Amino acid sequence: MAAEESAAPTRIMVAVNESTIKGYPHASISSRGAFDWILSKIVRANTSGFKLLFLHVQVPDEDGFDDMDSIYASPEDFKTIQRRDKIRGLHLLEHFVNHCHEIGVACEAWIKIGDPKEVICHEANHVQPDFLVLGSRGLGPFQKVFVGTVSEFCVKHSDCPVIAIKRNASQIPQDPVDD
Amino acid sequence: MAAEESAAPTRIMVAVNESTIKGYPHASISSRGAFDWILSKIVRANTSGFKLLFLHVQVPDEDGFDDMDSIYASPEDFKTIQRRDKIRGLHLLEHFVNHCHEIGVACEAWIKIGDPKEVICHEANHVQPDFLVLGSRGLGPFQKVFVGTVSEFCVKHSDCPVIAIKRNASQIPQDPVDD
Repeated sequence: MAAEESAAPTRIMVAVNESTIKGYPHASISSRGAFDWILSKIVRANTSGFKLLFLHVQVPDEDGFDDMDSIYASPEDFKTIQRRDKIRGLHLLEHFVNHCHEIGVACEAWIKIGDPKEVICHEANHVQPDFLVLGSRGLGPFQKVFVGTVSEFCVKHSDCPVIAIKRNASQIPQDPVDD
Repeated sequence: MAAEESAAPTRIMVAVNESTIKGYPHASISSRGAFDWILSKIVRANTSGFKLLFLHVQVPDEDGFDDMDSIYASPEDFKTIQRRDKIRGLHLLEHFVNHCHEIGVACEAWIKIGDPKEVICHEANHVQPDFLVLGSRGLGPFQKVFVGTVSEFCVKHSDCPVIAIKRNASQIPQDPVDD
């Protein structure tokens, strides 16, 4: 088995996002679920056999002007939002990267801005991981009609294999559309 | 990491089938691709960390009477077909089970009869693996209309995460619908 052990690590790309729950800090429930699943079910004790690639896609924030005067927004206001978004994004990735460093799993992390499903597929097809892991809210058919799923889109449009990890029933918030 | 190493192995269910190419022996190209992918990308050198569960679903053979007189088929003829199917199924599973034994990966294997996509989901929901791996022919949208895909059905109807492994371009036979 020595030959396999010395082979290049399996590169797993993971798309992570912030929680949508108001006041809820940092990574979404489904992002953390996907990360925990990778560590416990795939990496296990073989920490040198894998490399994790964390992508965080930021959606341009439509509510960005909620807490300032939208009528008199200046170029400086836009810069403030961009700075704030960047800090939030880095803070989100820090959670995952720090955990990887603690347990000795190699990783990379980066931020892109745009429509998550399209950016995830574009980055996956560019970076060419061995597979792509997506956290999923595990919505029923009725909820999907309104919310759509990133994972269905990525299964169709990514060159690499895609696996969606649904949240545990115990982790589902009051409104299943929250995350 | 000792705690993780001593944890119960990750149980990976794999659906395998026979090649549809006439005269082509044993496992389909996509089944072998999925198996190789699991070993090289997931199991790697950590052979004690995983257990593979091989399911082979046999479709009742509509062409079973091709080589005998269909008008005068007797109950004995049906038994002959069933015996032959069983031997072919065992032979298929033997390929995967033997390979697992050689490299020291725990495994189980079993045969069911019925509609593959429905039986795979039923068995997955019964056996509750950590995830399900399916070989896929990686057909384009035009071909899918006529052929359908087992993996799309299983993503929707399985409780566990599902990952479809497409064939390599180099492994595609002359007619991509073949496997």
